[in-house]
Amino acid sequence: MSNEIPVKIYLSEKEMPKFWYNFRADMKEKHPPFIHPGTLEPCVAEDLYPVFCKELVSQELNQTDQKIPIPDGIFDFYKMFRPSPLIRAYSLEKMLDTPAEIYYKFEGNNTSGSHKLNSAAAQAYYAKQEGLTSLTTETGAGQWGTALSMACAYYGIDLTIYMVKVSSEQKPYRKIVMETYGANVIPSPSDKTIVGRKILADNPTTGGSLGCAISEAIEQAITTENCRYVLGSVLDHVLLHQSVVGLECKIAMDKYKIKPDIIIGCAGGGSNLGGIIAPFMGERLNGKNNIRFIAVEPASCPSLTRGKYCYDFGDTAKTTPLIKMYTLGNRFIPSANHAGGLRYHGMSPIISKLYHDKFIEARSYIQNDVFDAAKIFIKTEGILPAPESTHAVKAAIDEALECKATNTKKVILFGLTGTGYFDLLAYSQHNSGEMTDHVPTDDELNAGFSSIIPFDIKY
Amino acid sequence: MSNEIPVKIYLSEKEMPKFWYNFRADMKEKHPPFIHPGTLEPCVAEDLYPVFCKELVSQELNQTDQKIPIPDGIFDFYKMFRPSPLIRAYSLEKMLDTPAEIYYKFEGNNTSGSHKLNSAAAQAYYAKQEGLTSLTTETGAGQWGTALSMACAYYGIDLTIYMVKVSSEQKPYRKIVMETYGANVIPSPSDKTIVGRKILADNPTTGGSLGCAISEAIEQAITTENCRYVLGSVLDHVLLHQSVVGLECKIAMDKYKIKPDIIIGCAGGGSNLGGIIAPFMGERLNGKNNIRFIAVEPASCPSLTRGKYCYDFGDTAKTTPLIKMYTLGNRFIPSANHAGGLRYHGMSPIISKLYHDKFIEARSYIQNDVFDAAKIFIKTEGILPAPESTHAVKAAIDEALECKATNTKKVILFGLTGTGYFDLLAYSQHNSGEMTDHVPTDDELNAGFSSIIPFDIKY
Repeated sequence: MSNEIPVKIYLSEKEMPKFWYNFRADMKEKHPPFIHPGTLEPCVAEDLYPVFCKELVSQELNQTDQKIPIPDGIFDFYKMFRPSPLIRAYSLEKMLDTPAEIYYKFEGNNTSGSHKLNSAAAQAYYAKQEGLTSLTTETGAGQWGTALSMACAYYGIDLTIYMVKVSSEQKPYRKIVMETYGANVIPSPSDKTIVGRKILADNPTTGGSLGCAISEAIEQAITTENCRYVLGSVLDHVLLHQSVVGLECKIAMDKYKIKPDIIIGCAGGGSNLGGIIAPFMGERLNGKNNIRFIAVEPASCPSLTRGKYCYDFGDTAKTTPLIKMYTLGNRFIPSANHAGGLRYHGMSPIISKLYHDKFIEARSYIQNDVFDAAKIFIKTEGILPAPESTHAVKAAIDEALECKATNTKKVILFGLTGTGYFDLLAYSQHNSGEMTDHVPTDDELNAGFSSIIPFDIKY
Repeated sequence: MSNEIPVKIYLSEKEMPKFWYNFRADMKEKHPPFIHPGTLEPCVAEDLYPVFCKELVSQELNQTDQKIPIPDGIFDFYKMFRPSPLIRAYSLEKMLDTPAEIYYKFEGNNTSGSHKLNSAAAQAYYAKQEGLTSLTTETGAGQWGTALSMACAYYGIDLTIYMVKVSSEQKPYRKIVMETYGANVIPSPSDKTIVGRKILADNPTTGGSLGCAISEAIEQAITTENCRYVLGSVLDHVLLHQSVVGLECKIAMDKYKIKPDIIIGCAGGGSNLGGIIAPFMGERLNGKNNIRFIAVEPASCPSLTRGKYCYDFGDTAKTTPLIKMYTLGNRFIPSANHAGGLRYHGMSPIISKLYHDKFIEARSYIQNDVFDAAKIFIKTEGILPAPESTHAVKAAIDEALECKATNTKKVILFGLTGTGYFDLLAYSQHNSGEMTDHVPTDDELNAGFSSIIPFDIKY
């Protein structure tokens, strides 16, 4: 084991980034704007104010400033759980007998168990600054809901979380953590909202869906005084907050003169990937590196690898603006898959644009294969990854084995977004050989695509 | 928030301790020896070889060497999850409005979720070095079993864990984690051992106990070739391995010229407390500081605060050597309390001796009070403590409030031994106001004491 580069690189507080990196400023072609479904014109800030905090709207629409300062109030919160370690996977490399150097940025060492806290902190802070007294959101797997509960407890803001009913039943511990931080967790669909009551009337036994939970959370936000809705992925400002992950990687790697050849991230809504690649993609877009960026998604929900690049709604209830993105159609429902955070029909408009312009590659894996990779990782590196993160683990191992096959030394960096402590049923199914997966057929994809309305939009 | 001392102090790999600190070498009076219950004479190494690895027996009986080198093979494993951060509780201090400075050493950032991995790594390593092929152990709350599963997976040793049946039913996730690391987890009592079958015949519906699980694990170890039994607390060599916690604290505090006035640890078997105090107690025993050391235990299992200092068995089945310790009697059964790691009838012989000689103070708290304290901690510091760790949190807060009342500035250090992610039912009960506790009556204590056999031992 080399002693030159330590197993874990922790930045000091003084080395931590004081700004977020907005690599949209480096994009020669920006991604097309949000479109108001009523007017079919680009959304302006005022269109978004009823739903989102003003500062977040401003960040959402800022495609020009490369560096956005992190306010002291957020930086103080970051210092409670950041910096996260950049880890050299010496044990994994040895086991794979690969000439590749493998690094991973581990975001799971906080109570929410994932990178989601980076944006939750920012969003709760700005809400408090704006004088709001409460927030609403939705959660599926629960990482985002837990992160936002922690941030709202810290800043002193009330929080209501609509949690997909089937998830709240399957993951009671997630619900307890959020309640322990003071959040009001409501299984969705509920009788608290008009949309919830309507869905329940139509289908009293439904287990709910993320689309429905989003609709309930938005309804409560716009009908409650001093309340706004917040979202944990997809949007540009969420990717912006997650850039702290990539910046810490960059600072640590520069310090040790490490130059990544490949950067890998799992991609559901896209915030993890957008975060870890941020400063590296900024360089790439300016012709300063030739890094391969790889998005990894589940074969059960292949928005990049099999989706269409077009305008679609962000939710099933069609309440969001229209977003130009890779989409499987707003009505596409992926098969049950434990990587709940990757079961989104669409994709961040930034990631979509970069993929469309071939700055990013994408691949998909079936669930059993990513858990096989996770088992190797668990036993060599000790950490038990979240189901979402296992996708990146699998891709990193595959790339390292390719290096072995071709006797090529490459430097691989991947994002280990979180821990799987609340997702152990998935591991249990894999342990017992009972894990299944479903790759959608072309007919199933076509059924999803048919829910995309072909608006006549000029972007 | 002061910028002089960072929120988190991480040592570099080069600063990490390369030896364990054996503060028994600093004790003018050593604790009395283990006694063989048959001969009533002190145990010698050969008495222990059938059960324990030779190197661990050697460490167990070594009361003279102050520094024991950490082998490279263990140090490499430590680097995967150590150093742990020493954290300045700025947010908690601010909320309490106390002049005290509060620091905590957080051992929960590894998949086992606690400090237990420090000794699991060492024990699995020595077993591998000795050429053993399998180990057995017991686990209650599951922290120890998980830690040992990780270490055995890393070093490549088979592991069988007897898990208290009621715990394996209440904490299915714990069982899955251990199985994911490849351990064979058997709910105890089982039909795999003579003692298990006997207990089941007597009481087919029993939920098991730690005492029974220990007996089953020992039976399998001594009847299986190349197999030994390992224990996660109480014993001197376990405290020795945990000294890495205190050493890291000391190095970090020396670096920033921080001198603790009070050091606090929860105490069940005593390994956490023995670990965090190690180098500081070494100084104290040599007259070089005047630190107050505080052991915190649950009122439901008050071995130090209400127990007797005498020779007793370490397990209910009376298979261990006799140990001079504070004990509630080997038949004492504490009421159900979520801090499973603190439900042991006895106490480390080192801690017992130091408490008896007044180098350590002790106090006990009821469960609702420690969870009230945990709630304050969770919302200010973000981390969700294990039920065991909440006891130390409560004591630290009490001491900080005492500083406020007396307008005294003191430096408080406490051990945050682990996270409560697998213990959320306890938080749920506290959230809903349904948490109860039972402080044993004098009659109940006397019933426990009556199980102590008054051997005629000359130590």
